[in-house]
Amino acid sequence: MTLTNQDAATLDRADPLARFRDRFVMGAEPLAYLDGNSLGRLPKATAARLRDVIDHEWGGRLIRGWEEKWLDLPTVVGDRLGAVVLGAGAGQTVIADSTSVNLYKLIHAAIGLRPGRTEIVIDDTNFPTDRYLVESIAAARTRTVRRIRPAFVESVTAELLETALGPDTAVVVLSQVDYRSGTLLDLAAITAQVHAAGAVVVWDLCHSVGVVPIELDAAGVDFAVGCTYKYLNAGPGAPAFMYVAERHLADVTQPITGWWSAEDMFAMATEYAPATSIRKMLSGTANVLGIVAVDEGIKLIAEAGIAAIRAKSLALTDFQIALIDQCGPVSHESVVTPRNHVRRGGHVTVRTPKARDITARLMAHGIIPDFRNPDMIRLGLSPLTTSFGEVFAAYTAANALGLGDL
Amino acid sequence: MTLTNQDAATLDRADPLARFRDRFVMGAEPLAYLDGNSLGRLPKATAARLRDVIDHEWGGRLIRGWEEKWLDLPTVVGDRLGAVVLGAGAGQTVIADSTSVNLYKLIHAAIGLRPGRTEIVIDDTNFPTDRYLVESIAAARTRTVRRIRPAFVESVTAELLETALGPDTAVVVLSQVDYRSGTLLDLAAITAQVHAAGAVVVWDLCHSVGVVPIELDAAGVDFAVGCTYKYLNAGPGAPAFMYVAERHLADVTQPITGWWSAEDMFAMATEYAPATSIRKMLSGTANVLGIVAVDEGIKLIAEAGIAAIRAKSLALTDFQIALIDQCGPVSHESVVTPRNHVRRGGHVTVRTPKARDITARLMAHGIIPDFRNPDMIRLGLSPLTTSFGEVFAAYTAANALGLGDL
Repeated sequence: MTLTNQDAATLDRADPLARFRDRFVMGAEPLAYLDGNSLGRLPKATAARLRDVIDHEWGGRLIRGWEEKWLDLPTVVGDRLGAVVLGAGAGQTVIADSTSVNLYKLIHAAIGLRPGRTEIVIDDTNFPTDRYLVESIAAARTRTVRRIRPAFVESVTAELLETALGPDTAVVVLSQVDYRSGTLLDLAAITAQVHAAGAVVVWDLCHSVGVVPIELDAAGVDFAVGCTYKYLNAGPGAPAFMYVAERHLADVTQPITGWWSAEDMFAMATEYAPATSIRKMLSGTANVLGIVAVDEGIKLIAEAGIAAIRAKSLALTDFQIALIDQCGPVSHESVVTPRNHVRRGGHVTVRTPKARDITARLMAHGIIPDFRNPDMIRLGLSPLTTSFGEVFAAYTAANALGLGDL
Repeated sequence: MTLTNQDAATLDRADPLARFRDRFVMGAEPLAYLDGNSLGRLPKATAARLRDVIDHEWGGRLIRGWEEKWLDLPTVVGDRLGAVVLGAGAGQTVIADSTSVNLYKLIHAAIGLRPGRTEIVIDDTNFPTDRYLVESIAAARTRTVRRIRPAFVESVTAELLETALGPDTAVVVLSQVDYRSGTLLDLAAITAQVHAAGAVVVWDLCHSVGVVPIELDAAGVDFAVGCTYKYLNAGPGAPAFMYVAERHLADVTQPITGWWSAEDMFAMATEYAPATSIRKMLSGTANVLGIVAVDEGIKLIAEAGIAAIRAKSLALTDFQIALIDQCGPVSHESVVTPRNHVRRGGHVTVRTPKARDITARLMAHGIIPDFRNPDMIRLGLSPLTTSFGEVFAAYTAANALGLGDL
């Protein structure tokens, strides 16, 4: 049975989230935007909210904006993210800085919880920032890095992880969804496995947040971090988030002890006294525009519901994979994303030596996928904004360009 | 001779920068905004530019925005800030993160340049973030902190500094303008003094950038950092900047080794190779909206010229001090900001046990100063937006409230 544009239209008509496309700015082009996993589209409400904050809060209230609205944004919006997206109770999440800066703090914090242990575990398929930070922090704190080496583009398995865990393991740093293959790990099972070894885990949720159900509290996660410009649609360079489990808050320290991390930031005290709340994880002045954009992204997720988003994500990626399959056996083989729903995140990745060239040709024809060095094309299907018709249009265009049969 | 509203009007008519007030959003209230040293007003061009970036670059170009415009924003706008405001040649300045995060990186970088030396010098009057970071970094890197203790609200002198410098001094961390008293230090002379001791200096320019002439290259400064939401008018939580002298670039390392600091950030390489350029100081994804706002702030400074801004700043602070003086001898004595132009930054500070109460009463009547714990009122006069009439209006209102004679 060959999938047609009619099938796409049928799926779109039956899609309970189809109406959300109207909530985003949608131009005449691109023909298909398959990169929502890199930069999500602009919500109309976000454009309006940012105008309001710029013109009326900054322009009108000036410095009074801090007392009236802004000082608590990192924790207020953090709590909303926790409740709607992360499965995290209040008081454990802040919106601040970048994923890199937050990961840096959390890895330091995690090491501090296991002072007698010497090893940090990370896998070679993890995102560069995560790997680079683990290496440099380990060097600075005289820890050893134990690198798990999954086969290229495959991800960590429980068996592989088990070979790395031991009495010296202090911290494990993992991504819930692999940024290249899109492989989804079992957050709860792996967290339990790490805890069984007496270590703590730092989860990088960049490629899962807002598209995969996440239950940090229920899974007993220690630390988590992630960005907001992908499925949370908060815009280019919007601030990231940090989660610290409540049970660790009293014991945790972080290295970037700026005034926003102090118990009373306006005391301007001679000696540093860190906040007792999650605010102890902050450093400098909050990025107001960025946090407000995160807030709007969360509202859309709340309205749609994570369960419905996950259902559509799986339907979209199923449809995408089926279209690739019907291009031919070489294309079929090129799909490195798991076909098993339980192991699949929100994007579909194709691996081919022609990846760079194909990406360029597709982009020249209004189809926007995402190239990843050296030989991968990621197709990021964002449930609130991607239609089945859009996926089919990309398939049609690729075939017309002679790119369907890899 | 008593100053009157006529004097204010005369000064405003003669002010070559008066026309810049039209370039900012000015509402019917507040009556007087004397807190431009905490949060600068909103430039009309910034509101328009942000709308354009949000609606057309993010909303329209989507992920393509990175290649087309955004990837180089940290260095492109950094270079502009260097040329217009910092007296810094290209390739030494980036816009990124917060002052706290940047200070953290620079203090680590500075320590790395003097591996055989054990002491970090800072003064007790420096901003809390600076002091807290020096303490925590010193502890992490087994250095000793040598604290200079100027009399309260006074600032560092060459004599005081000399008592702290020695063969063990690795790094000195200073603010060019004291955030409380407004005292301006001699950047070039102190930098030379630190160098004579064989140490390097990290300058915090938060309260001087955009209001005081700065010549980092000419002064031979090693490192500098500062924020952009005060006299650069880049908005609440806009990103900060970092300056690293070109002669240090090859030797400098920084701890937050995120992907944006890699030589080829898209190589996603297994091993970390830092950029050789100033990009090595970056960490995570650039805050696009924030940097764009910084860019607009720089354009206004460039158009006005730092010399004209400094001239008006001194005239405004002279006028403000004269008005305080004519309230009476107690008010006269309350001024802790140097009367000597050479030692005065951009704001005027009054010290009184009634500071908190006075601030609240003024704010209730449309006058916005800035309270600083425990007993200071800062009057931040921003040359592009503050008029002499506004300063006089605040004086009139304070007297009408019975607050003139302290």
